[in-house]
Amino acid sequence: MPPTRAAHRRVTPRGATFMRFGVCYYPEQWPRGRWADDAASMVELGLELVRIGEFAWSRYEPARGRFEFGWLDEAIDTLANAGLKVVLGTPTATPPVWLARERPEILSVGPDGRRRAYGSRRHTSTTSRAYREEAARIVSVLVGRYGQHPAIAAWQIDNEPGNHDSARCWSEESHLAFQAWLSCRFGGSIEALNDAWGTVFWSMTYPSFEAVELPVPTVTGHNPSLLVAHLAFAAEQAAEALAEQRAIVTAGSPGRELFTNLYLGDIDIDPRQVARPTGLGSVDIYPHGLGNADDVAFVLDLARGSALAAEQGPEGLGGRAWIVEQQPGPVNWTGDNPAVPAGQVRLWCWQAAMHGVETLLWFRWRAARAGQEQHHAALLRHDGTRAPAWDEAARFIREYERVGSLSPHLLPRPPARVALVHDHLDAWMLEVIPQVHDASHRMLVTAAHAAARRLGLDVDVVPADADLTGYEVVLAPALHTVTPDRIARLEAALAAGALVILGPRSLVRDQHAVWVDEPVPGGLSARLGARVEHAGSPAGWPRDASDPSQLVLDDPREPLAVGGWIETLTDVADDATVLGRARGGPLDGEPVVVRRGGLVHLGAASMEAWARVLGLLLRRRPRPDHLEVFERGGRHVTLDHRTRTIGGLGSVSDRD
Amino acid sequence: MPPTRAAHRRVTPRGATFMRFGVCYYPEQWPRGRWADDAASMVELGLELVRIGEFAWSRYEPARGRFEFGWLDEAIDTLANAGLKVVLGTPTATPPVWLARERPEILSVGPDGRRRAYGSRRHTSTTSRAYREEAARIVSVLVGRYGQHPAIAAWQIDNEPGNHDSARCWSEESHLAFQAWLSCRFGGSIEALNDAWGTVFWSMTYPSFEAVELPVPTVTGHNPSLLVAHLAFAAEQAAEALAEQRAIVTAGSPGRELFTNLYLGDIDIDPRQVARPTGLGSVDIYPHGLGNADDVAFVLDLARGSALAAEQGPEGLGGRAWIVEQQPGPVNWTGDNPAVPAGQVRLWCWQAAMHGVETLLWFRWRAARAGQEQHHAALLRHDGTRAPAWDEAARFIREYERVGSLSPHLLPRPPARVALVHDHLDAWMLEVIPQVHDASHRMLVTAAHAAARRLGLDVDVVPADADLTGYEVVLAPALHTVTPDRIARLEAALAAGALVILGPRSLVRDQHAVWVDEPVPGGLSARLGARVEHAGSPAGWPRDASDPSQLVLDDPREPLAVGGWIETLTDVADDATVLGRARGGPLDGEPVVVRRGGLVHLGAASMEAWARVLGLLLRRRPRPDHLEVFERGGRHVTLDHRTRTIGGLGSVSDRD
Amino acid sequence: MPPTRAAHRRVTPRGATFMRFGVCYYPEQWPRGRWADDAASMVELGLELVRIGEFAWSRYEPARGRFEFGWLDEAIDTLANAGLKVVLGTPTATPPVWLARERPEILSVGPDGRRRAYGSRRHTSTTSRAYREEAARIVSVLVGRYGQHPAIAAWQIDNEPGNHDSARCWSEESHLAFQAWLSCRFGGSIEALNDAWGTVFWSMTYPSFEAVELPVPTVTGHNPSLLVAHLAFAAEQAAEALAEQRAIVTAGSPGRELFTNLYLGDIDIDPRQVARPTGLGSVDIYPHGLGNADDVAFVLDLARGSALAAEQGPEGLGGRAWIVEQQPGPVNWTGDNPAVPAGQVRLWCWQAAMHGVETLLWFRWRAARAGQEQHHAALLRHDGTRAPAWDEAARFIREYERVGSLSPHLLPRPPARVALVHDHLDAWMLEVIPQVHDASHRMLVTAAHAAARRLGLDVDVVPADADLTGYEVVLAPALHTVTPDRIARLEAALAAGALVILGPRSLVRDQHAVWVDEPVPGGLSARLGARVEHAGSPAGWPRDASDPSQLVLDDPREPLAVGGWIETLTDVADDATVLGRARGGPLDGEPVVVRRGGLVHLGAASMEAWARVLGLLLRRRPRPDHLEVFERGGRHVTLDHRTRTIGGLGSVSDRD
Repeated sequence: MPPTRAAHRRVTPRGATFMRFGVCYYPEQWPRGRWADDAASMVELGLELVRIGEFAWSRYEPARGRFEFGWLDEAIDTLANAGLKVVLGTPTATPPVWLARERPEILSVGPDGRRRAYGSRRHTSTTSRAYREEAARIVSVLVGRYGQHPAIAAWQIDNEPGNHDSARCWSEESHLAFQAWLSCRFGGSIEALNDAWGTVFWSMTYPSFEAVELPVPTVTGHNPSLLVAHLAFAAEQAAEALAEQRAIVTAGSPGRELFTNLYLGDIDIDPRQVARPTGLGSVDIYPHGLGNADDVAFVLDLARGSALAAEQGPEGLGGRAWIVEQQPGPVNWTGDNPAVPAGQVRLWCWQAAMHGVETLLWFRWRAARAGQEQHHAALLRHDGTRAPAWDEAARFIREYERVGSLSPHLLPRPPARVALVHDHLDAWMLEVIPQVHDASHRMLVTAAHAAARRLGLDVDVVPADADLTGYEVVLAPALHTVTPDRIARLEAALAAGALVILGPRSLVRDQHAVWVDEPVPGGLSARLGARVEHAGSPAGWPRDASDPSQLVLDDPREPLAVGGWIETLTDVADDATVLGRARGGPLDGEPVVVRRGGLVHLGAASMEAWARVLGLLLRRRPRPDHLEVFERGGRHVTLDHRTRTIGGLGSVSDRD
Repeated sequence: MPPTRAAHRRVTPRGATFMRFGVCYYPEQWPRGRWADDAASMVELGLELVRIGEFAWSRYEPARGRFEFGWLDEAIDTLANAGLKVVLGTPTATPPVWLARERPEILSVGPDGRRRAYGSRRHTSTTSRAYREEAARIVSVLVGRYGQHPAIAAWQIDNEPGNHDSARCWSEESHLAFQAWLSCRFGGSIEALNDAWGTVFWSMTYPSFEAVELPVPTVTGHNPSLLVAHLAFAAEQAAEALAEQRAIVTAGSPGRELFTNLYLGDIDIDPRQVARPTGLGSVDIYPHGLGNADDVAFVLDLARGSALAAEQGPEGLGGRAWIVEQQPGPVNWTGDNPAVPAGQVRLWCWQAAMHGVETLLWFRWRAARAGQEQHHAALLRHDGTRAPAWDEAARFIREYERVGSLSPHLLPRPPARVALVHDHLDAWMLEVIPQVHDASHRMLVTAAHAAARRLGLDVDVVPADADLTGYEVVLAPALHTVTPDRIARLEAALAAGALVILGPRSLVRDQHAVWVDEPVPGGLSARLGARVEHAGSPAGWPRDASDPSQLVLDDPREPLAVGGWIETLTDVADDATVLGRARGGPLDGEPVVVRRGGLVHLGAASMEAWARVLGLLLRRRPRPDHLEVFERGGRHVTLDHRTRTIGGLGSVSDRD
Repeated sequence: MPPTRAAHRRVTPRGATFMRFGVCYYPEQWPRGRWADDAASMVELGLELVRIGEFAWSRYEPARGRFEFGWLDEAIDTLANAGLKVVLGTPTATPPVWLARERPEILSVGPDGRRRAYGSRRHTSTTSRAYREEAARIVSVLVGRYGQHPAIAAWQIDNEPGNHDSARCWSEESHLAFQAWLSCRFGGSIEALNDAWGTVFWSMTYPSFEAVELPVPTVTGHNPSLLVAHLAFAAEQAAEALAEQRAIVTAGSPGRELFTNLYLGDIDIDPRQVARPTGLGSVDIYPHGLGNADDVAFVLDLARGSALAAEQGPEGLGGRAWIVEQQPGPVNWTGDNPAVPAGQVRLWCWQAAMHGVETLLWFRWRAARAGQEQHHAALLRHDGTRAPAWDEAARFIREYERVGSLSPHLLPRPPARVALVHDHLDAWMLEVIPQVHDASHRMLVTAAHAAARRLGLDVDVVPADADLTGYEVVLAPALHTVTPDRIARLEAALAAGALVILGPRSLVRDQHAVWVDEPVPGGLSARLGARVEHAGSPAGWPRDASDPSQLVLDDPREPLAVGGWIETLTDVADDATVLGRARGGPLDGEPVVVRRGGLVHLGAASMEAWARVLGLLLRRRPRPDHLEVFERGGRHVTLDHRTRTIGGLGSVSDRD
């Protein structure tokens, strides 16, 4: 049972929700003599929450059953005495060396068949019974000791599961579990699996579930049905392992917030399987890893949406989200690790605030002197002095409190008019059949999201089982999988008067990755009055002599790039309207955007194309790329991602 | 004994050979109720041949010895009843799961020492005795059942052997077979091998054949003699396995055409070892995978040439070729998979026709709903409606029949005046010693071929053991290996008055990949009156400040790019003529093209350089890159690969 | 005990040191009948030394204990009879096949856990006891036979150890040896290791040395402390193995030069561990592999410096160096292998001479007909005729002798005023934590070295334990590791009046790769009156819309690129001077170059920035990039690396 929300929110004098701030802290990495000073400094900065413990297993259980909690008791008490609340992390992302040596089967096996070496992190297999047992054991110990501690405000379960492509495991134990999972899914009938997956293709008919191999890399590609099933299995195993931990924490430490912080740049884990049971989405925000400001905006809305329950419709907030790790400066893991200019950290925080994030913790308090992340910036430098991020965090907190006090109406996120339907299954589908470069599920979805944001529209990123009837506009980019339920929900939205825009790669295959036996978009082609003909690259052949097709809408002088994917439509009904056509390239003149009634099919992948089509349909003009606008309390709050300045926030604004 | 040719050709009213058309069909992937409709539709389109069965093993032998041929009987009869003939494929590219589990030794082992995982295709080892036994068993069963069936017009043996770099196998069984093969090749004398390979280099002298390891990747490169031998061994193993199947088919199903469809974008398999015994070359034509229109043209001529017998000279057709898989639209496996504009499929078919292909089957009838190739276009869409390729195929067939009826003299390929000598051994040589980027055997050979085509010349791609004396021009690009027989044949051509043009990387090393102990071009340097000095990259050093050398021929204002490879010549005899020199770059001023009598050495790799030199020597002006011209019956038939239009075909032409 | 230097130098009539020349020769690869001719031709060319034997083990021990030295006796005598001296190589880089089969444990194991396949070279593990035993055995045999031979002038120990990333071995034997090495290093205390490495990070605390795993690749990065220790261990193992060989040679063949030829493009081996004990640095110079002329210059100075003893200060020569393999034309192993224009080989030789190299051998006499290096140029072609390099070598030798005779004062290298501090430990540190692209230790160090060379300054590349007090300028680019001894030496140099310039990435972490607990530059921040703030990429975010920061010094109209790394400084003291600031990009306006007294911190990585800063400080104007100037005997000797011409060498000069 998720905790009630109200218990964890502060309310401003005028009634608006108020963000809370915090930081990730590793007392085990610093001298005890420093802890009290650190705590006092955190309070001075305006922090309330401190996440600790998620990588400290070896420090409090240095050998099996030998627990040394004294230091952790003291650390928690030191923080509590300073007035801080603690978010305690379960340590299962980095089991100690002694445990990996005692029970090596907790380690996962790579696609090369070798057991992962110890070192780094996330080298464990969530399918491993030994891993599950040890996780349950240590979490029980932790909950037994700290479950009732008054300073514990929340629990973090594990840390970034699925990161580093770690969800899948190729061990024999995982292999057997996968076979059992398939058997369960297909009611014990291998014929059902063979039928559903079309294994007659290339003679891959399985005589039994025992004959199903893991998709070990071989001479060329595996059946996509197998690949998608394996991704789904791995994600479910991870979600199940997290659920086991949550059950222990919920029983032993009731009333606390519960979450697992995900890095949503990955697709290994289905965020809804993790966040929905707790009603709280949690995301680690590293803009340098995610892409650009549009990618950050999308991930923030995805995090909120991941916490939504099934059947939920627009209700204003569109889901709850925490940022448990927020980037405070350059990081160490993105390959080239750009510099961070003055004002950027503050702007990232304001972006989080305007997207409705409830709680924000910076990662991390002080830069690590040892280990893999020495070049990761922090609020303090390696030597404990204040880094530039400290000043930016302080400024942001001051500004936020000031706006909350003087103009609280600018902060709450109003109900969104736009829903973007997003489901992880579709991401896996396109992952295993990419067909072209640069048309991943994330790219296609982000383009649609960013386009709506260009028009100043708030967007709820909602699950495929959401109630869509309360939205004015429903965006369905890369809604790849066709199910009767999805079609029914889209039909319901249309019936309720919504404008429904299908994006490229939508409604193509069933849940087993088999192409529909009807025109695409499956289930809605008749209603659209058109069917998809070409679906793929806009480029021609030969590559060196061919420009890709572009898109022309109402103004023939402004052809638009279509991005990595294009779809042309054919058999267009007389009462359907062609809103845009291909220009140049191999598909010159073919319809690309078709509308019939409230239903639109948009066959281009670029943000520009989405923004122009949305602008036409909604009679709004897109803003320049660097401006992000929020309509709040009758005003426009504007974040300028190029100049890193803010407008519309009253005295906090850098400009008018 | 190959079937006589006449039995398999249709003749137009006026005597010209007439192409036949067909399609690849997978009845096992579609409901039985659909088969008769499909067959009728094929006939309506003008098809005669239907290839079936090559991936259906698991469907007719679902468990060892349990055969379920009823469906296949019915499928064949359905097709036959509609008036279609069947090409039956042996299913050895995709053995069933149960067989791989029962006898895992049929699966090949990768260079990493791991047995290939089941899944995808071509994961088998042709060296495996178990694989050979099972292949013989299933082919015998098939031949026993269908060998005398009147509807069976041809047999396809296996499917695209060597594709996906699958010919080599690193199993212990393959290791032992390789050692035995080497022992046989060197008469049981390890000293002979050590001498031939120069193993004293880096102390690699073998004490015995048992000491020869497979070239497993190690800290740096292996001896190229070992690498070439391993490539040759693998290709021979594959050819031997195909021969075993052919022997069974020939015995049990006499009078049918026999072929193995090769994807000639690979070099794993020597096409002559496969096609020559049957007198029929077969190739799968996927322009998007092969490169550009020049690459397609070359592969078409290579397919024809692969069927030529030893000692064969120009005789007009220059070999027989079938296309058993022709691309009908976008495919799924080339990485970015470009779009296909209107008219392209038709043009590809006309290119095949003009290059003298006898039979053309499109791949495939209906787009696959399941499995790895869902994005592969077909004549029908996934839902069974007609795709754009259906209309283009229909148009092409109508046009072809019309030309055959009204202007049959435009279709037959006349005897070629130009031979291009091509041998797979040379491709392997350059594969294992590339020396530079962008100078592979295929690149070098295609440049010469395309240049001749720019001049409107038909080219026979002939084996190294061909009789060259009937040709006016002999092109020898990348004819790397020196053998007495090769030199004798080139000398004979010169004696017969031919112009012989040696291209770059010609006549350098012996059949064991050891450099000749004489000037290059080995065996012909004295006759040329010059020797190769620099042979390699035209680029200078340091890389960021150096432009590559260009080539200047008669007009100093028109320097030509030389491509990825340049050769300069030195010790030029007084009676030899320097036709071209390097301009700029590190080799400025050095001779690059030298002629003495009928022998020319051309030290540049680009198509442009070849075309200009050929134009000078033959007094012809090259056409623009996008035009492919065929001199047919006194007229010029022109395919424009840029506009996808046709000229010179009478009423079929798009333009004059 | 290293041999005295004087015994190995020739002196010109006027007293200058005189280079000796030679070549690498493989008599075992050529017919005996050719040897005498080859020897005579070498003498004709002006050679004195011939290196032989380093890859011939299988030829003189074709089976265990069966020695066939007759051919080698004859080869040595043939060379000696012609008046040549022999450099005999120990053959341990390529053990014979029979030995690898008999004792496979001599082969190293890769990070994938597989024992390296035989083939190529350097597949052995220097940690292997079997390898050490066999190396000692064969070297003892060789020394016993040839140790007193009057023709033997020098011994080469092994060949290019560490090349092809071969120093590290992942065998269980190496694993155990690594654990023992760590135990020894940390006094048997695993707690000491855990403290030193900060293993509490990500819970990697080791319970014992037995629990330390090799850094086998796993889901993400390993602790950099572990990685650096593993690199250091592997280098020490290699150095120890070489020392064992040297001990045998020194005992049995006294008075000869001893060296191991290193390819200093790698960083696997610490050149000082190898060269210092013999007082002679030896390097193989392949400009095409090393980079550009600046890289060659640096490596030449590094080779000299690698032979310096601890505590050594400037003494004129700055160390002794031989080039045992000098590139004579195109090579076969650099990927694209550029062409070599006329005059280049001669210029490379003059560059070596002007940098003070004592002895130069070309690699190799005749181009190999068999094996991996067939495309490697040589002084003779494959067929034994003279290649272009022969003429260039002959010209260079003539010129060198002429200058030595007429203007001997132009040849000796004068004492250097500039020291560049270089230590291999720093290279390993930046290897395991690169943080950005294009800021490797080599790149950072070469930029500083090249800048000094632009000003015409000779540079001693000195070890971190050198006496720096005799230099006017001390450059410390990427002097990453902080130790008390290093700080003391830099302070001593400052006290002695030197200008000390710290480059980027200097004085950051301790010898275990843990960040210092004080401001950077550690140990000198207070003296500098500033601390490093941003240290990393000059690029901004998002990547597609952001230009990197540049550097502006005295002239605001000339912003300079900063290269792959930038450091900004903060807390600048009142009496410190900001000499340069960032311009544009994310760090606009921040201090980048700060000076206080004799200490300068330069936070840019480009050669241009170094050259401009040095020019400002030393009041010299940098020469253009293509000119390398040597101040010799009051004149300027100039090598023009663009035109490949020489100036200032009297009658040898191409221009004034």
